[in-house]
Amino acid sequence: MIERLRGIVGDKGLITDPAEMEPWLVDWRQRRRGRALAIVQPASTAEVSAVVALCAAEGQPVFPVGGNTGLCFGAVPDSGRSDKPGIVLSLRRMNRIRSVDRATGVATVDAGVVLGDLHNAAIEAGRQFPLHLGSEGSAQIGGLISTNAGGTGVVRYGPMRDLVAGLEVVLPDGRVLSDLAALRKDNTGYMLRHLFIGAEGTLGIVTGAALRLHPQTPNTAHAWVAVAEPAAAVALLAALQDRAGSYIQAFEMVSASQFELVRKHAERARFPFPEIPAWSVLIELGSEDATTALPAILEEVVGAALEAGEVLDAVIATSEQQAAEFWHLRHSVSEANRKEGMSITHDVAVRSSHVAPFIAAADKVAAERYPQAITEVVCHLGDGNVHYILMFTHEFWAALPDAEAFALEVERAIHDVAARFGGTFSAEHGVGRKLTEELARLADPLRYELMNKVKTLFDPQNLMNPGVLLAPGTA
Amino acid sequence: MIERLRGIVGDKGLITDPAEMEPWLVDWRQRRRGRALAIVQPASTAEVSAVVALCAAEGQPVFPVGGNTGLCFGAVPDSGRSDKPGIVLSLRRMNRIRSVDRATGVATVDAGVVLGDLHNAAIEAGRQFPLHLGSEGSAQIGGLISTNAGGTGVVRYGPMRDLVAGLEVVLPDGRVLSDLAALRKDNTGYMLRHLFIGAEGTLGIVTGAALRLHPQTPNTAHAWVAVAEPAAAVALLAALQDRAGSYIQAFEMVSASQFELVRKHAERARFPFPEIPAWSVLIELGSEDATTALPAILEEVVGAALEAGEVLDAVIATSEQQAAEFWHLRHSVSEANRKEGMSITHDVAVRSSHVAPFIAAADKVAAERYPQAITEVVCHLGDGNVHYILMFTHEFWAALPDAEAFALEVERAIHDVAARFGGTFSAEHGVGRKLTEELARLADPLRYELMNKVKTLFDPQNLMNPGVLLAPGTA
Repeated sequence: MIERLRGIVGDKGLITDPAEMEPWLVDWRQRRRGRALAIVQPASTAEVSAVVALCAAEGQPVFPVGGNTGLCFGAVPDSGRSDKPGIVLSLRRMNRIRSVDRATGVATVDAGVVLGDLHNAAIEAGRQFPLHLGSEGSAQIGGLISTNAGGTGVVRYGPMRDLVAGLEVVLPDGRVLSDLAALRKDNTGYMLRHLFIGAEGTLGIVTGAALRLHPQTPNTAHAWVAVAEPAAAVALLAALQDRAGSYIQAFEMVSASQFELVRKHAERARFPFPEIPAWSVLIELGSEDATTALPAILEEVVGAALEAGEVLDAVIATSEQQAAEFWHLRHSVSEANRKEGMSITHDVAVRSSHVAPFIAAADKVAAERYPQAITEVVCHLGDGNVHYILMFTHEFWAALPDAEAFALEVERAIHDVAARFGGTFSAEHGVGRKLTEELARLADPLRYELMNKVKTLFDPQNLMNPGVLLAPGTA
Repeated sequence: MIERLRGIVGDKGLITDPAEMEPWLVDWRQRRRGRALAIVQPASTAEVSAVVALCAAEGQPVFPVGGNTGLCFGAVPDSGRSDKPGIVLSLRRMNRIRSVDRATGVATVDAGVVLGDLHNAAIEAGRQFPLHLGSEGSAQIGGLISTNAGGTGVVRYGPMRDLVAGLEVVLPDGRVLSDLAALRKDNTGYMLRHLFIGAEGTLGIVTGAALRLHPQTPNTAHAWVAVAEPAAAVALLAALQDRAGSYIQAFEMVSASQFELVRKHAERARFPFPEIPAWSVLIELGSEDATTALPAILEEVVGAALEAGEVLDAVIATSEQQAAEFWHLRHSVSEANRKEGMSITHDVAVRSSHVAPFIAAADKVAAERYPQAITEVVCHLGDGNVHYILMFTHEFWAALPDAEAFALEVERAIHDVAARFGGTFSAEHGVGRKLTEELARLADPLRYELMNKVKTLFDPQNLMNPGVLLAPGTA
């Protein structure tokens, strides 16, 4: 097997030395470890095709990895079978930006391109690729597509799914399905593309993509707004949609408890308010048009809400530096939580209109069952995506007899609250190996049955990232 | 069978009288006729489920129909089997707007709701549903989803696919797949929803939908711009995207030959130019924000192109009345062509950047092979969607020995040109019964194979709209 792989990808494309393989076998937070025969790095779609066909013939699993930046262990190789450990497949050598079509607004790229490199190529062409997240310096396009990545731009531009105009996929039998025409309109039958987006590598290997570019929005305006409760933030969102809906580029809500931790831990933080409000909202508007008076729009909408008593206080940025300070507070959340204690973070989404009752219900469950925890909320309110966090002290955590079981219990409790509001337990992080049981437990049974049938249709041998997404034994 | 259907839907839901059935058996342009056992009109999703389950048990085909406004005979019932003619299934009694969620921007509706009624409900809620097309007074949501309808708003809001936030579907075995949570973010496995959008009723019956509403854009600006050639229009589109990309609500290009016919036949038409230019473009910008100076943006971008010699002439509307006159010209195209002669209209799409070379290549084929034709172009340039038209005189047409075979030959010739540019033969009209052979001929064979496998997975008996989309014998 190894020699046949070498025949396809050459020495440069093969890692079999255990020490060199090590970083590929563990997730970046060092929480889960797997094993594999080899790390295989093809240099072309044809080589991926040959590798996958070989694995299909040999019955060897294929574990695709992008930038290995995921949070759900979706890139940890683990076949559960000592006779067929499978291979790790990295496309990092396939890092070519194939073309940028400015008039159509489409970039066609290899799946191994790093997100930050695509950002630069789009800017060079006078456009932007509006997917932004913390790991953009290492996350790869193939992984971002396979996990349908989110980030801060979703409220305006949608998740990765909305930015994919076409895909090139190596199917589990090695054949290449190419759909890179990137037409805005095409009504010639079933849209298969969307099956692969967010499939976490379980239906085939994404080797290339045509991605939608957007106009740049150099004109921006920013505000931090204080409100008494989440419902007031939802009302403000609706008012802003009326007045300037398509300018909204961020609408992020933070609880006082979360803001307190940022104040406690973040460096170089300048706070917009003298006291930390119960809830605060960071708003960004943006436009291609330099003449549109975005700060005036913010003043008008927020001012009306202030007069109506729906908003308690507000600060509109008067300089780029102040706007950067506003964002710095928002971006300091993860670091502050890491410094404070042991946190269990949930990636829940409900409708925006359900965010306020969801938070109230989750607070009730947390207060009753986990009174030791401080609860915090960081929320992409424009998408209904609530990162609901329970923060425990290191001492409490160390004293737990089984911390993993405890974390699972907490997660299930919060996921159940989300489900009561028609919400999901995984808004943007995916399922990976971490949440397969939750998917089996919470998914609509008919949908879960159909998912398994689709999996079997495309991958009858269950060789593509087995154990990810669908719980073993259910496919 | 009839009595069991009556037991489910009652007398009110059943038509078996041949005279009353007649309008349901023929397409609205009276070109294709079918047959069926009965017209069945359930009043609820539960009744649809029971009807479909009964048909599955009896092996009777189900032919869904919406407003019967399609152009490709997708709603004409024709099982091709005298022993199993099947039923026509209309959801017109399911016409309830279930809820409008303003903060989330989602309307949840029965599939039988007429598009115009949804427009009104959205406006009442202070929002808009931005899908607009000629038949909006009778087209129904279920049909619009099943055909992934397009229209004039696609350049800004995308086709129906981009406006669907959730679906309720009765599967071919009668079970109900409900996915109406309408979350902006949900990464819990395969996105099955997109399989049903544009499936033309061949995978199940759409009974309900959650649809995205957008903010209203009361501030608009309009221009007619004259250019020497399509490439100049594409360059103008790119320049406008730089300056005001997300304001572009229409970017429609018309050839001189098409404009001449409008001048000849349209009533109450006022022309913006003293002479009809080689090519002209109708631009609409729109914004939620009343203070954005949209006419000034048009003046700036078009003015710069005028100075650079890329634009020949331009008129910017100075009143709502003039804007309405601008659109009146564009909307007079179909009527003018109907009055002029026999036209063969193609629904091609290529990338915007390929529109100019596509038109040149199609003109060459038309001039060489069909010198009797006048060629015309009406083009949604922002979507790359070219309605390329060959116009023949009634006399020429009447003298053809086999007009249908001739039309097919012309269509294939133009579809082949589109394929050379990576384009599609059906951008927004769908496949129906009209273009199944073209799909089998032009689709990527691997994609076509997978489509057939998906069809068999969902509908193993081939009872859902058989003969539509996939050519008989290929599924």
